[in-house]
Amino acid sequence: MKIVVDVFGGDNAPNEILEGCKQAIEETSDLNLVLVGKDDIINSYVDNNNIDKNRVEVINAPDIITNEEHPVEAIRSKKDSSLVVALKHLQNNEDCCGFVSAGSTGAVLTGATLIVRRIKNIFRPALAPVLPTVKDKSVILVDCGANVDCKPEMLNQFAVMGSVYAKAVNNCDNPKVGLLNNGVEEGKGNLLTKETYNLLKENNDITFAGNIEAREILSGDVDVVVTDGFAGNVALKSCEGTALSMFSIIKKNILGGGLRAKLGYLLLKPAFKNVKKTMDYNDNGGAIMLGLSKVIIKSHGSSKAKAIKNSIIQCYNLVNSKIVERITETIGQ
Amino acid sequence: MKIVVDVFGGDNAPNEILEGCKQAIEETSDLNLVLVGKDDIINSYVDNNNIDKNRVEVINAPDIITNEEHPVEAIRSKKDSSLVVALKHLQNNEDCCGFVSAGSTGAVLTGATLIVRRIKNIFRPALAPVLPTVKDKSVILVDCGANVDCKPEMLNQFAVMGSVYAKAVNNCDNPKVGLLNNGVEEGKGNLLTKETYNLLKENNDITFAGNIEAREILSGDVDVVVTDGFAGNVALKSCEGTALSMFSIIKKNILGGGLRAKLGYLLLKPAFKNVKKTMDYNDNGGAIMLGLSKVIIKSHGSSKAKAIKNSIIQCYNLVNSKIVERITETIGQ
Repeated sequence: MKIVVDVFGGDNAPNEILEGCKQAIEETSDLNLVLVGKDDIINSYVDNNNIDKNRVEVINAPDIITNEEHPVEAIRSKKDSSLVVALKHLQNNEDCCGFVSAGSTGAVLTGATLIVRRIKNIFRPALAPVLPTVKDKSVILVDCGANVDCKPEMLNQFAVMGSVYAKAVNNCDNPKVGLLNNGVEEGKGNLLTKETYNLLKENNDITFAGNIEAREILSGDVDVVVTDGFAGNVALKSCEGTALSMFSIIKKNILGGGLRAKLGYLLLKPAFKNVKKTMDYNDNGGAIMLGLSKVIIKSHGSSKAKAIKNSIIQCYNLVNSKIVERITETIGQ
Repeated sequence: MKIVVDVFGGDNAPNEILEGCKQAIEETSDLNLVLVGKDDIINSYVDNNNIDKNRVEVINAPDIITNEEHPVEAIRSKKDSSLVVALKHLQNNEDCCGFVSAGSTGAVLTGATLIVRRIKNIFRPALAPVLPTVKDKSVILVDCGANVDCKPEMLNQFAVMGSVYAKAVNNCDNPKVGLLNNGVEEGKGNLLTKETYNLLKENNDITFAGNIEAREILSGDVDVVVTDGFAGNVALKSCEGTALSMFSIIKKNILGGGLRAKLGYLLLKPAFKNVKKTMDYNDNGGAIMLGLSKVIIKSHGSSKAKAIKNSIIQCYNLVNSKIVERITETIGQ
């Protein structure tokens, strides 16, 4: 299998990205990587780290798209950027099945939508991260930012794609789908969620569990949470922000709590480490862009080697699970 | 000053509500309460607890509106409910300046909107809770659920009302207003936030600080966060849910961490208590409904006596701060 990697996307590019690629190659036997970016830098890394040259292909792309650039303009004007060159290579080569980038979310979304073919009948691709829950299982949030203005029909497709994804990655036979809403009762919601509710209720391709409030996203009661990209983005970042704020408030209280609190902290350190690990969804890989004809994984901008390796392995597993073919069978025919 | 209390709204009504009223009376000298609900129960509480009868007035309302009822139908059909009787008394008596209820949010919002007069020129009242931040100051989120489908003009008014509120309660001379969005750059957002951005930029009644991502709500960087009621509800409940989930994950790790972790927990107990207190926005009182001609406070459904007392004191302080008059001066003329 071949996966294309944007070596120059992300805050820690190119070194952490290359290190993640190296780890992914070491962890697999039938995975080859196409490394896209400044070829002199990539080649010297490959040489210096004894990476098997039969398992990597290097494609030169001298330009870089940054977080500060306007996504659409950047994709249109920077034809030689690692992102655009990588996506074109992915689209034009049938043996390339997946793509990983830690670059600008907006640019990856725009680039993938413009360059990579959509699955037939899919209105719009959606971005779906996997979040931890309190129940030793994860939940898929779809959409979390690709489509900020949605129609009910789009959310109906997000539900199906999220369901297929949950089956593929979580070995979950009968994933429960909840609609993010401002109350659990039928009839609650804004114009969008009220109409969507009716579509989901009639949809035989999913198991609809009704409305779910944002308070319950991390409860693990449902496997898929469907929402428009604006509210999904708000939910995702609120969860992230609250977790970080709590760590910061806990830290402040420990520092201000004298010797007693500091000793307590030392004893609880392994427990805190576990909590941080549980809450850190980046460690579990990236967010998939559902609805495209190849597996596109957007890794967090601050990804280090381990997160990149996890995203590549996630991409590899998703290709093996035939997620694109499964979505095509359900919606694309 | 006279404040009306819905004694039969909330999960812990009527006992915790009455106990909260008693505490509020004890903590003030010029506050009288109008207690609305089943008068036999209220009167016997007043008698048994030696409450000064010069400071309370009891109005009978035999019916109760529950969380399970449809808000609009309940308000229309249950004319004898504590909520409807209380709101009518508030509207019809000039000496009653404020109202507190821990009842169904939907019913309180609907009831207040239908029964209590709006300030002139206000399109729609908005619900605004006060949230803790990591910076020893609070942030006001407006709207968090009263208006799930909004127009830019409404959000523009929310910004002004939130600003006036921040000045009144936080003694904040020049509150910074952020627009909740899916990115900080100008031009980001859905149709609603893009249009709202332009209105806020031109609005001389506020200090506009640009877009703010949900990750930063609790950072304390801005004093007011403006959003539509759907996204605001998602943000509020995501924060609440994540905080609860984290406590539950921390607990699980402590219980599974053996003697070492348990000892660590004992030493850190005061610190944890502080963290819980910081994160618990209910302790700080309730959410105000901005834009009405009286001060309406919606206390959390699970409020106990202390939270009810805090909500009544909050209402008392807001009446004293002349928040209604201030909003009228800014928008209502």
